[in-house]
Amino acid sequence: MKTLQDYIDKLNKLNFKEMYNNDFFLTWEKTDEELEAVWTVADALRFMRENNISTKVFESGLGISLFRDNSTRTRFSFASACNLLGLEVQDLDEGKSQVAHGETVRETANMISFMADVIGIRDDMYIGKGNAYMHEVADSVEEGHRDGILEQRPTLVNLQCDIDHPTQCMADMLHIIHEFGGIENLKGKKLAMTWAYSPSYGKPLSVPQGVIGLMTRMGMEVVLAHPEGYEVMPEVEEVARKNAEKSGGSFKRTNSMEEAFKDADIVYPKSWAPFAAMEKRTNLYGEGDFDGIDKLEKELLAQNAQHKDWACTEELMKTTKDGKALYLHCLPADITGVSCETGEVDATVFDRYRTPLYKEASFKPYVIAAMIMLSKFADPADVLKKLEEKGTPRVFK
Amino acid sequence: MKTLQDYIDKLNKLNFKEMYNNDFFLTWEKTDEELEAVWTVADALRFMRENNISTKVFESGLGISLFRDNSTRTRFSFASACNLLGLEVQDLDEGKSQVAHGETVRETANMISFMADVIGIRDDMYIGKGNAYMHEVADSVEEGHRDGILEQRPTLVNLQCDIDHPTQCMADMLHIIHEFGGIENLKGKKLAMTWAYSPSYGKPLSVPQGVIGLMTRMGMEVVLAHPEGYEVMPEVEEVARKNAEKSGGSFKRTNSMEEAFKDADIVYPKSWAPFAAMEKRTNLYGEGDFDGIDKLEKELLAQNAQHKDWACTEELMKTTKDGKALYLHCLPADITGVSCETGEVDATVFDRYRTPLYKEASFKPYVIAAMIMLSKFADPADVLKKLEEKGTPRVFK
Amino acid sequence: MKTLQDYIDKLNKLNFKEMYNNDFFLTWEKTDEELEAVWTVADALRFMRENNISTKVFESGLGISLFRDNSTRTRFSFASACNLLGLEVQDLDEGKSQVAHGETVRETANMISFMADVIGIRDDMYIGKGNAYMHEVADSVEEGHRDGILEQRPTLVNLQCDIDHPTQCMADMLHIIHEFGGIENLKGKKLAMTWAYSPSYGKPLSVPQGVIGLMTRMGMEVVLAHPEGYEVMPEVEEVARKNAEKSGGSFKRTNSMEEAFKDADIVYPKSWAPFAAMEKRTNLYGEGDFDGIDKLEKELLAQNAQHKDWACTEELMKTTKDGKALYLHCLPADITGVSCETGEVDATVFDRYRTPLYKEASFKPYVIAAMIMLSKFADPADVLKKLEEKGTPRVFK
Repeated sequence: MKTLQDYIDKLNKLNFKEMYNNDFFLTWEKTDEELEAVWTVADALRFMRENNISTKVFESGLGISLFRDNSTRTRFSFASACNLLGLEVQDLDEGKSQVAHGETVRETANMISFMADVIGIRDDMYIGKGNAYMHEVADSVEEGHRDGILEQRPTLVNLQCDIDHPTQCMADMLHIIHEFGGIENLKGKKLAMTWAYSPSYGKPLSVPQGVIGLMTRMGMEVVLAHPEGYEVMPEVEEVARKNAEKSGGSFKRTNSMEEAFKDADIVYPKSWAPFAAMEKRTNLYGEGDFDGIDKLEKELLAQNAQHKDWACTEELMKTTKDGKALYLHCLPADITGVSCETGEVDATVFDRYRTPLYKEASFKPYVIAAMIMLSKFADPADVLKKLEEKGTPRVFK
Repeated sequence: MKTLQDYIDKLNKLNFKEMYNNDFFLTWEKTDEELEAVWTVADALRFMRENNISTKVFESGLGISLFRDNSTRTRFSFASACNLLGLEVQDLDEGKSQVAHGETVRETANMISFMADVIGIRDDMYIGKGNAYMHEVADSVEEGHRDGILEQRPTLVNLQCDIDHPTQCMADMLHIIHEFGGIENLKGKKLAMTWAYSPSYGKPLSVPQGVIGLMTRMGMEVVLAHPEGYEVMPEVEEVARKNAEKSGGSFKRTNSMEEAFKDADIVYPKSWAPFAAMEKRTNLYGEGDFDGIDKLEKELLAQNAQHKDWACTEELMKTTKDGKALYLHCLPADITGVSCETGEVDATVFDRYRTPLYKEASFKPYVIAAMIMLSKFADPADVLKKLEEKGTPRVFK
Repeated sequence: MKTLQDYIDKLNKLNFKEMYNNDFFLTWEKTDEELEAVWTVADALRFMRENNISTKVFESGLGISLFRDNSTRTRFSFASACNLLGLEVQDLDEGKSQVAHGETVRETANMISFMADVIGIRDDMYIGKGNAYMHEVADSVEEGHRDGILEQRPTLVNLQCDIDHPTQCMADMLHIIHEFGGIENLKGKKLAMTWAYSPSYGKPLSVPQGVIGLMTRMGMEVVLAHPEGYEVMPEVEEVARKNAEKSGGSFKRTNSMEEAFKDADIVYPKSWAPFAAMEKRTNLYGEGDFDGIDKLEKELLAQNAQHKDWACTEELMKTTKDGKALYLHCLPADITGVSCETGEVDATVFDRYRTPLYKEASFKPYVIAAMIMLSKFADPADVLKKLEEKGTPRVFK
């Protein structure tokens, strides 16, 4: 694309009406055209920022962030997205304010939203809880808006739940699109989403699930590889299967990392915890059985340690397409000999891909900003056009 | 009101000159016209926001918030108010920065205020301390401004002290005004501010005190009801008595919740700690007597438990005017069978009033913003007019 | 100066080209004209704010702050500076996000900087580490910008490292310039940077080092006084010696506070920890030897206690030039009988100088804002001119 008009023209060909005044929970709840609208607006916003055109569409308004797990990348991506559009970030710190599940969710959701245009939530720790919690919040503010309590309806953006990590995977995908020169070039490309050994324990499933739930839509040959016992949610595998069928691609599961890497165009080796174990942990938490949790943790670390050979090594990379598959990771990676003794990836592999990895991450703020824009404006193409005409520079000149 | 001009016309009839370059500590330090100016500006700001007119009056500037007690509602209300006017919130976290009482208050107050236009403080834990601390801060920055250290004089807004909770009670009152169709309709209405049982301990007195100190000014029949031993500050009762006398209403105290609810137009059932116990606790803290504090806590919980019958039940609600008094609460309420086994209010009562309760809370950001505006602008009516003429949309269009 | 044009004219005579797209680590890495540009822009920004002219040069953008030590003054100064220019502050809290040294610095630096225009870091605790860490961050984002990951190059501002505290010392100096009526009046003035007793332990060396590294450049007679064993970094003393030589001033070291104060025009009495002890502590931390650290702390407190006579008393102040040297401190000071039993300064001395001390501090936000502006704009004089012409009021009118 050379001019903003190109992005606008593209947007005008897409149907994304349903995104207006809506939320973003899971990528597979959105149509292909809606996802393409996100990528197009994201690219347009980046283009404008690169050309020093302000995209501040809010004179005032808050972006509420609620992180139920530590986060640097996503936290800063959300803050950047809000700031880019003119929203001020206000963190809801549970340590400070004790948002519980249950009845009080409705109340707190409204109390923090009087001037909130967007609410971003990360809640990925407990199976069956995170996505449900987000829906509870979204329903509460929807109702609050309907009842005349909130002047505006805050959009909910899923910043990672127990099922999906849509802002991550949409950024990953936008990176792939740029690297391969367009969505149309992805048909038939092989993508290996594989488990990899990490000395740490209990990493969320939302990335592998999000990847197989999204990447199967582009006609790619998606392979999910992991040791036995590291299954992901069956519902999401079902999503992946149906996607593949519809898009003319394929979805396969294997217990061999080698098989997955063989001739792959794209590899995404990353540790995660077994779904069944995460479910068990959630129940143990519910019962307050902390001895049980300690025991489970030890078992899982022991289980992990049996699969130290699951690593993205130089040898394995050589088996990919022309020996140079695009290596993806949501970061931070466990790098062998750098961040840990034995990890997900060889240091030399990681080093070679550092710049593309950082670029991959750099799409996330724009993807989040695009999700917000598509929810807040009925005609975002028109908004982009008018912003260009107004031409307020981001940095004074 | 139909147009912004209506609010402006109303403002132009009121005398609130003394609010300019001043602070907001206690409602009874303000004249009736000053309070009406707050409600009028609050309504005008809400009207403008609803009509997508930006009320950003600061291009830069900080709003400092200092919370010495946990807070979600007030924290977000203050943040929303600042944001609405263009001020960026900066929290002074005592964990991070150790603002002590004494000599260092003056220094810290100035050090954080170089670009602060408003300072909001919540300090409600210790009798005789919170309000005094706020005055210390306000005096310090007033002096700093006079001495040429601060280019501007930051306004202090009391976000809850040991004596009053003015932003809460002013929001409560604005809600009442809207529900009853104007201040002029409040004469003779009966308001019951009553204690109610809660399993938690040591809730601040600032709400009941703020309510009797404010609501007695409108010619209402205000009844303060609580079990023996749950007296509020005698000075504030004196304020309430004088207010009632002047406004042609009444102020009564009773030890019967039934008597208070009988034929009431408005009820505000809420737990609080006895003033004498809070005073004792403050002294124990001063002496570092933590065993004494533990002992006091146990005594107070036992004392509370004797009054579980003080609850806003369906039966009691039926005794109010037409069985449908307006139910108020500053939230969160202790709801029987929901947030606790036995609490302040029946779940069915709470459910029925949820929407009005949330609306009540929704006035707080606007009330705070109005307090700031009235302090920072000599002619706020003119500012509102010019903002309308300028017509910058809050959300781009 | 009477008009903005005066500042602009002054700027136009200075060469500070190298500051554009550059960082601010140590004052002695900058030329005299570059430092003068900082003070000139700082004064101009203050002049504009006083005259209600907005200096918001960013429509969006983040200012990242990373404090590895508690801070109120510098934290709020940085927040104020960012806000004045239109940048929203986003704290990188290590408790929340675990920025480690080593490989991950590069990654985190990029991940937080996608929309960051400035990064401010305070890292003063460990000898040989803080400044090095800042360079690591700056190099990382420089590389990230070069590689097309970051659309803009974030400027690094040193908010205190193990070597220098440039924003503090530049503010101190701007205060001196104002008090003495210009840089040209400083030649031959005597400045005493002296150690003083404090009951607390392990205060950073960056202030005394920063002072002798900066103040020796103005042709002043700088005396560094401390008890034996409280030496500062030898490299910085060398910087001071060379500066003095070049500027026609002098740099002397003495173990007598009396000698330093004698006829001094300016005194800066302040506690710090011995360089050798700080180095030892850094090593003990590295080895995880916490018993060793405890032992060292006890030794240092005992060592400190031998020098309680090192205090800025009324008697000592009388020996300064006309008995009224300008008293400086970076605050907070340990005031005898106020914040501690025996401290750095007599309460009556401190009281007399409170207003100038606060003014000294008030320059810091403007100094930081100036550092940012000089890094982000090739022609800041032109920017100031255009801002004046645009004439957007900071506070609406």
